[in-house]
Amino acid sequence: MKPSRSFASDNNAGVHPEVLKSLAAVNEGHVVGYGDDPYTASAESLFRRHFGADIAVFFVFNGTAANCLSLKALTKTYEAVICAEAAHIYVDECGAPEKMTGCKLIPLPTRDGKLTVDAVRKAYHGIGDQHHVQPRVISITQATEVGTVYRPNEIKALAEFAHERQMFLHVDGARIGNAAASLGKGLRECTRDVGVDVLSFGATKNGGMGAEAVIFFNPDLAKEFKFYRKQGMQLASKMRYLAAQFEALFKDDLWLKNARHSNRMAQLLKRELSDVPDVRIVYPVEANGVFARIPSRSIPKLLKRYFFYPWDIEQSVVRWMCSWDTTEDDVKKFVDFVRRTLA
Amino acid sequence: MKPSRSFASDNNAGVHPEVLKSLAAVNEGHVVGYGDDPYTASAESLFRRHFGADIAVFFVFNGTAANCLSLKALTKTYEAVICAEAAHIYVDECGAPEKMTGCKLIPLPTRDGKLTVDAVRKAYHGIGDQHHVQPRVISITQATEVGTVYRPNEIKALAEFAHERQMFLHVDGARIGNAAASLGKGLRECTRDVGVDVLSFGATKNGGMGAEAVIFFNPDLAKEFKFYRKQGMQLASKMRYLAAQFEALFKDDLWLKNARHSNRMAQLLKRELSDVPDVRIVYPVEANGVFARIPSRSIPKLLKRYFFYPWDIEQSVVRWMCSWDTTEDDVKKFVDFVRRTLA
Amino acid sequence: MKPSRSFASDNNAGVHPEVLKSLAAVNEGHVVGYGDDPYTASAESLFRRHFGADIAVFFVFNGTAANCLSLKALTKTYEAVICAEAAHIYVDECGAPEKMTGCKLIPLPTRDGKLTVDAVRKAYHGIGDQHHVQPRVISITQATEVGTVYRPNEIKALAEFAHERQMFLHVDGARIGNAAASLGKGLRECTRDVGVDVLSFGATKNGGMGAEAVIFFNPDLAKEFKFYRKQGMQLASKMRYLAAQFEALFKDDLWLKNARHSNRMAQLLKRELSDVPDVRIVYPVEANGVFARIPSRSIPKLLKRYFFYPWDIEQSVVRWMCSWDTTEDDVKKFVDFVRRTLA
Amino acid sequence: MKPSRSFASDNNAGVHPEVLKSLAAVNEGHVVGYGDDPYTASAESLFRRHFGADIAVFFVFNGTAANCLSLKALTKTYEAVICAEAAHIYVDECGAPEKMTGCKLIPLPTRDGKLTVDAVRKAYHGIGDQHHVQPRVISITQATEVGTVYRPNEIKALAEFAHERQMFLHVDGARIGNAAASLGKGLRECTRDVGVDVLSFGATKNGGMGAEAVIFFNPDLAKEFKFYRKQGMQLASKMRYLAAQFEALFKDDLWLKNARHSNRMAQLLKRELSDVPDVRIVYPVEANGVFARIPSRSIPKLLKRYFFYPWDIEQSVVRWMCSWDTTEDDVKKFVDFVRRTLA
Repeated sequence: MKPSRSFASDNNAGVHPEVLKSLAAVNEGHVVGYGDDPYTASAESLFRRHFGADIAVFFVFNGTAANCLSLKALTKTYEAVICAEAAHIYVDECGAPEKMTGCKLIPLPTRDGKLTVDAVRKAYHGIGDQHHVQPRVISITQATEVGTVYRPNEIKALAEFAHERQMFLHVDGARIGNAAASLGKGLRECTRDVGVDVLSFGATKNGGMGAEAVIFFNPDLAKEFKFYRKQGMQLASKMRYLAAQFEALFKDDLWLKNARHSNRMAQLLKRELSDVPDVRIVYPVEANGVFARIPSRSIPKLLKRYFFYPWDIEQSVVRWMCSWDTTEDDVKKFVDFVRRTLA
Repeated sequence: MKPSRSFASDNNAGVHPEVLKSLAAVNEGHVVGYGDDPYTASAESLFRRHFGADIAVFFVFNGTAANCLSLKALTKTYEAVICAEAAHIYVDECGAPEKMTGCKLIPLPTRDGKLTVDAVRKAYHGIGDQHHVQPRVISITQATEVGTVYRPNEIKALAEFAHERQMFLHVDGARIGNAAASLGKGLRECTRDVGVDVLSFGATKNGGMGAEAVIFFNPDLAKEFKFYRKQGMQLASKMRYLAAQFEALFKDDLWLKNARHSNRMAQLLKRELSDVPDVRIVYPVEANGVFARIPSRSIPKLLKRYFFYPWDIEQSVVRWMCSWDTTEDDVKKFVDFVRRTLA
Repeated sequence: MKPSRSFASDNNAGVHPEVLKSLAAVNEGHVVGYGDDPYTASAESLFRRHFGADIAVFFVFNGTAANCLSLKALTKTYEAVICAEAAHIYVDECGAPEKMTGCKLIPLPTRDGKLTVDAVRKAYHGIGDQHHVQPRVISITQATEVGTVYRPNEIKALAEFAHERQMFLHVDGARIGNAAASLGKGLRECTRDVGVDVLSFGATKNGGMGAEAVIFFNPDLAKEFKFYRKQGMQLASKMRYLAAQFEALFKDDLWLKNARHSNRMAQLLKRELSDVPDVRIVYPVEANGVFARIPSRSIPKLLKRYFFYPWDIEQSVVRWMCSWDTTEDDVKKFVDFVRRTLA
Repeated sequence: MKPSRSFASDNNAGVHPEVLKSLAAVNEGHVVGYGDDPYTASAESLFRRHFGADIAVFFVFNGTAANCLSLKALTKTYEAVICAEAAHIYVDECGAPEKMTGCKLIPLPTRDGKLTVDAVRKAYHGIGDQHHVQPRVISITQATEVGTVYRPNEIKALAEFAHERQMFLHVDGARIGNAAASLGKGLRECTRDVGVDVLSFGATKNGGMGAEAVIFFNPDLAKEFKFYRKQGMQLASKMRYLAAQFEALFKDDLWLKNARHSNRMAQLLKRELSDVPDVRIVYPVEANGVFARIPSRSIPKLLKRYFFYPWDIEQSVVRWMCSWDTTEDDVKKFVDFVRRTLA
């Protein structure tokens, strides 16, 4: 029998029981649709508690939408978004950013998934030249697609570079909880306080069912967002069920517990793998993912029992993600299986 | 104290308890994301049971997406969609259809919310002329935005008109359950069997939480849909929780029970209103909505206690919708209040 | 033998000889491409002389582009453009406005091709409501598609309505010369001075080869236009040959002579037709077009000798346009032929 | 006094006198607008003579449009276009391809401006995966942006790679004449006969005023192009003046004379530069452009007298283009000036 939990992705996990309870808790009577209800107001106030009173926050269904609509709100069609070449918006959203915004994305190679000011500077040119797209947004992913975490000062440097040039800094925070937990910082400390302008705040991968928030730290940037959300087909009629997910995740810092747990499981996984011959960890394990180079012939064998995604077929690198519900036993059994299979 | 249920919209209602149970029932262990899981496969098979084995079905988050992505799959940017001028896609989706498809929508006036072949014929011109958009889709809403229901032969006539011209017939079925219940027909009988090409199948307004399906009766039309869904920001990572909603609604024909119930409540509401002076029902009550002309000065008074939407301010027409959870007592108390307020 | 000049359209005419000469006159040596040349600067200064020093003006290839890029510069994707249902942007541009801007166009019926404040007011609603597109531009055509001409005070009223609501007034001036000539006003008097914000200034139909200008009377609105023009595929590399056309048309008021002439030919055509039985002029002849109801069976007979466009097949109305090169003899021979054919 | 001709760009040159004459030659009487005229038909037949009877050909205003509309005709929004990272469509069209098509462009580094099958193969992945854009077009530039020319067999290899995968090969032929002249091949031999599907055929840079053609070698691909051209704002009303330019360029092989001449001038320029110290030619001179690394401090000095574009500021590489009207004397005086300036 296959194990009930894999290391394929944190979105392969189910919903935390508290989130399910929260859905039931709001399921009373009628409330006005499309976000004009007390549950949504309450969830919004939780975001304000974490990020400051003067924010604008909007709920959407998934991370692709949070990212693309954030970018739409920040750009004109002739502008451009600078991102890492491994960025989810560049690689994994089937051209949704280009389609939604009309903009070009400018992909930059990175060593460890992180953009640097030096790299961005090289992509910043042609300013004012009508033949060239005009860079308007730097978009980074935190935690990154390869499981690393930007240090606050790294973000600050990018934000300063952006702001000096009338650009914006957007963060794809599909795993912002994991990043904050990893840094031991508050959510605000590692986003708003270091200059982030707009944050895609992820809940789905951290125990939610399907809910993400877009947070504008300067509400002026958000004036038109409600229209972009609706035109972007992301306005939930029964909004209370998105709100309820955030309610559950903020209650008793469930988001932090979940994130810490999955991060810790990734550390355990890394540790347990450390003495498996032929396994080489290729990126620092700073959040909930482990990227390992393994013999390519072993991959199909491992996949027979555990589903996961090859990350870089040419380099024979695979991605193993831990979730809020990964157990120590899961990790140990998995590493056992890896060890036996590779032997 | 305000009543806990209003007549504002069927999406102001909560989620049917069976749907909540169904969400919990699928919340076990890990499954592959993005729809490649057994729960999604199972829900798809229920659609096949109802609509035929040779369909293609896709789940999305909401009705706007179901409509716009259906239209995207059927059109090129220079084509056009013919619809009623009261159509949700024309009036209530903030330009999402135009933005997503690039197409023009051609709005036609109607008497009772229903397009007719005669009306559509007048909008069908300029064919082959490079200066003009080329009509490619007729899109109708079933039940309509004004609570009427197309007869199967009316749909058939539109479908034939469309197919003779290489056009498609799309149905916005946000309330397809109410229509089928009203007609006393099976879901397939009043859609596929009368020539519908693509159906936006609504669950949210009929007891669901937030799930709609796009059904292609000719799978050839669906070949690219998975890409359009992803690029349209509507691919759920934890798809099982959309699937579970359909599972619940199809089980023991819950969809039909809910639809019949809300339709019956609308009939009751109509009946109870029949002897209220100054209330005039302006459209046939064939689904779960009642549209009434009432003295305009009474509207603010009614709104103090019951939230609902003015439908046509100039004509002083209001819309009252019944839901799966509307009770006879709700209706009676509401009509009592209307009677007293208008007196 | 067919006559060498028809009454089909002012764009069926050739290029005024002075325009051809002007093209040759700028054909000396190299100049920097894309508009950074002295000929373009000189042509721009002619626009400033006519419309004021503080304008921003851009040259594009054709009228569709002038219109669509004007609208693009004024709107966000969730906004809407109010126009007459016979407007060129609504009927004759194959959905280019929707594709370029993402916006919905809101078509209003008119009696004589002209929008009125009353009509526009009815289309101005749903403001601030996220479900609805937000009207941002009123676009009118001057002279209109049916050969009528807005009076300055009519334009002023529309401009005031627009500006009170943070909207803009755009004028499709494909035949702005004919309108100014008809009104006996200067170009500025009947546009900028009565509140127009952006003008598509037509040269092609008035003796040019293929050149239109977009004029912003508030340069702040034009800040991004150079990028929209390039992204809209309308930046000419050899811009001097667009500029030269304007140079010729402004020299010795050639634009005005051409426009007056074609207007006068339309008056002559109207007069000559006045005693032809079975011909009824259906719109006031105020510019260079004559719209006539004629027996439908006569249309194919007329078309054998003279190419023109049926305007409204159902009403058996045809459109006859006069050009800068139409002669009195052309008119008389044409009316003779009409008279004989209808007899 | 500044010299009347520079080496900035072939589009800084004027119009060949035969082209001007040709414009005058078609300026007789009225013809039907929008391409339904005998001049357009005649020009189209010249393309058929060169490229085969069974092609579809369309005229547009400029190269950006020829490229973007070609790509639009070949793609769906979720697809992708593979191109060189120096491609005009990627770098110099202000995001027009992304805006028009909705597609992502996938840029590949090259050694000499040319894509290779090996490079393209690496970018061809994620096929069928809904998360990824789907490569549909390989787009190459001939002659390339760095003045090199694909050999026919290089194009054939790319075409075969494309066709084996249901992809298309598009050629941006802004300088296709220069390439054909360089190869000593017929236009058809180096495009259609080696597998090109769609060609942007450039006239503007080779003595024209402003006209490019889009040629589909499989007319089935062109069925919708007339609508895309109109919706793309590129349908000329007075089409005869675009047609006339092609008429002139094909007459007595003017296109070839012009191309050969500018190529020869580039060879002369290269030769003359060969003994100038501190000038290093960095790409093979195979068409009409010379790319040279020169001391960066000399660039501003040269620009005082001759306008041209720095190509790569970091590498201190400049671009010098020859035109149909460049003279030997121009070249010699320019090289003299370079020599003196660098000394």
